[in-house]
Amino acid sequence: MAALAPGGQQVAPIATDALIIGAGPVGLFQVFQLGLLDIHAHVVDALPYAGGQCMELYPDKPIYDIPAVPATTGRQLTASLLQQIAPFGATFHLGQEVSALQQRSDGRFDVETSRGTRFVSKTIFIAAGVGAFQPRRLQVDGLAAFNNTQVFYQAPGPTGFAGKRLLVVGGDEAALEQALAFAQDGPGRAASVTLLHRRDAFTAEPATVARMRALCELGAMQFRVGQITGYDAQDGQLTHAQITGVDGLTQALALDAMLVCLGLSPKLGPVADWGLAMERKQLQVDTEKFSTNVPGIFAVGDINTYPGKKKLILCGFHECVLAAFGAAPLIFPDKKIQLQYTTTSPRLHQLLGVAPVVN
Amino acid sequence: MAALAPGGQQVAPIATDALIIGAGPVGLFQVFQLGLLDIHAHVVDALPYAGGQCMELYPDKPIYDIPAVPATTGRQLTASLLQQIAPFGATFHLGQEVSALQQRSDGRFDVETSRGTRFVSKTIFIAAGVGAFQPRRLQVDGLAAFNNTQVFYQAPGPTGFAGKRLLVVGGDEAALEQALAFAQDGPGRAASVTLLHRRDAFTAEPATVARMRALCELGAMQFRVGQITGYDAQDGQLTHAQITGVDGLTQALALDAMLVCLGLSPKLGPVADWGLAMERKQLQVDTEKFSTNVPGIFAVGDINTYPGKKKLILCGFHECVLAAFGAAPLIFPDKKIQLQYTTTSPRLHQLLGVAPVVN
Repeated sequence: MAALAPGGQQVAPIATDALIIGAGPVGLFQVFQLGLLDIHAHVVDALPYAGGQCMELYPDKPIYDIPAVPATTGRQLTASLLQQIAPFGATFHLGQEVSALQQRSDGRFDVETSRGTRFVSKTIFIAAGVGAFQPRRLQVDGLAAFNNTQVFYQAPGPTGFAGKRLLVVGGDEAALEQALAFAQDGPGRAASVTLLHRRDAFTAEPATVARMRALCELGAMQFRVGQITGYDAQDGQLTHAQITGVDGLTQALALDAMLVCLGLSPKLGPVADWGLAMERKQLQVDTEKFSTNVPGIFAVGDINTYPGKKKLILCGFHECVLAAFGAAPLIFPDKKIQLQYTTTSPRLHQLLGVAPVVN
Repeated sequence: MAALAPGGQQVAPIATDALIIGAGPVGLFQVFQLGLLDIHAHVVDALPYAGGQCMELYPDKPIYDIPAVPATTGRQLTASLLQQIAPFGATFHLGQEVSALQQRSDGRFDVETSRGTRFVSKTIFIAAGVGAFQPRRLQVDGLAAFNNTQVFYQAPGPTGFAGKRLLVVGGDEAALEQALAFAQDGPGRAASVTLLHRRDAFTAEPATVARMRALCELGAMQFRVGQITGYDAQDGQLTHAQITGVDGLTQALALDAMLVCLGLSPKLGPVADWGLAMERKQLQVDTEKFSTNVPGIFAVGDINTYPGKKKLILCGFHECVLAAFGAAPLIFPDKKIQLQYTTTSPRLHQLLGVAPVVN
């Protein structure tokens, strides 16, 4: 599992006081609360950007229950939190999920991500929400055997489908953009592109839909309404997708490759394998420190559970506070940790990089 | 204790589902969380305006730790919360503190305020922070015997000191404004006005200080540096204040009345007498419902205590959520209470008075 540098030698893990798993709003606010206690954090998230569910599921929908913020959106909330935590200079490791976590005999944790980034951290904050967002899989028995050879959830580069008969599955902006990209003139152009969606309506920009329809009119690509209900293979090669239309009739479509763009869905993933006490896929925590049953591993936000738990962002914010104070003695065993106020504390003003208050 | 209407008949108490004691940020957010559960609230506060400590102690100082609000002030925070809770139409009863609370045999609570407002409420939310803000008292043995006859903490109307030798004690904006008001020409003018403050520096607008100094130059009022360390009385009348200056010398000042403007300080007040379990002047609560030991009485914000408690506004916000869900079954015993999200719930959109989201 050790990561290797290009030259072949092993790369030393990043040593840190705190590692936060999840860059959703609660993970971001955990950076802030740790920062106020002078604890620097690294943050890992499966998505390629901060914001978690807020950015993935409702970036532009209104949120009305963030206290003292009468209305915001997932995108605005994320931007505000990023601005608020900026003084603390957390290091983000995005587009990768934590794949392994093990405790050393000295109490610290070895952590490795799906991209091979390695950490050794004194404390872990699991702010993973409903899990790591991953591409939603096509549910067709046996089809997974062709993953990464003929069935893809991410295009294998701009020329990966050049000259091939390509089936793109999905109806969102990303699906349409991919179909358009491989249908247009250029070195990456596919031999043919068929877009398949379960209905003739799209969750995409009208302009993108118009471009797709224009290419269909020109015969440069096809659009079909239906779902994949089976496939044909010969000599270990996928040859056809069986497509069932709204009329209930199934037809075979010859293809060389399939690109599945069904959006992302959260998966709890490896968190479930770390030996932490769980209840219905949630991590059990106490309400004093929001610690899991493993000292040093805290859980905040939607992923935890305790009596009275409500899955609200604002509850996660509170949990971050108590988790930060719960962790501080593990990081600074000899320091007396005191609550200070951002309105009055010169030390916090220094950490926040703001001018002192003149009265 | 029953309040009487002007005609003499007893006024019926206001029947309500929820009574919130305290209109600080946490009390205000309690209105919001109750509102999302379709529970209307009445709010009582000793101060004549909403905002509590935030407005009383740091209206214009920056606050940096409200989540997703990188910087605000006590005043802005209060305004944002008032805007956020506006859809729920809570009824405010300001400038009065709860003086009595008793539980009926049917479980409801009889509540009366210092102004005689009476309620009968199914649930009580104590969001009283460090207590009710009350005028800071002059600490001189025996002087309290003259309260409201010759020693006042609030002026008895604009002509209450007309023709009298008045001593105004204090150095803030309110103290200076009062001294100026009674020194200026008009029907309320005092025979003489002396302003007494412990030092020759004021926490007031420079323009107000300049006006005061100008009147002193003109001989229309006097300013003295010192503190009241005793008094003289004759035939039950206060005749002189004994004023000790910075030089340690004490001199007697003849007077007819004294107006004390030493600002407000919080007093826990009658909350301590309601038989609720306490620890170091804090109300003990559980962390599932933030209920006190009396079912139906919840405590949120700085006034409560539990393992891990941090006195932060944002923690109080979280406590409001769980307290609201803890109270709902007492108010709607036959209704199934479910967490809904402001982003997606048509019912919450209706309660919030916002347009439904069109996707």
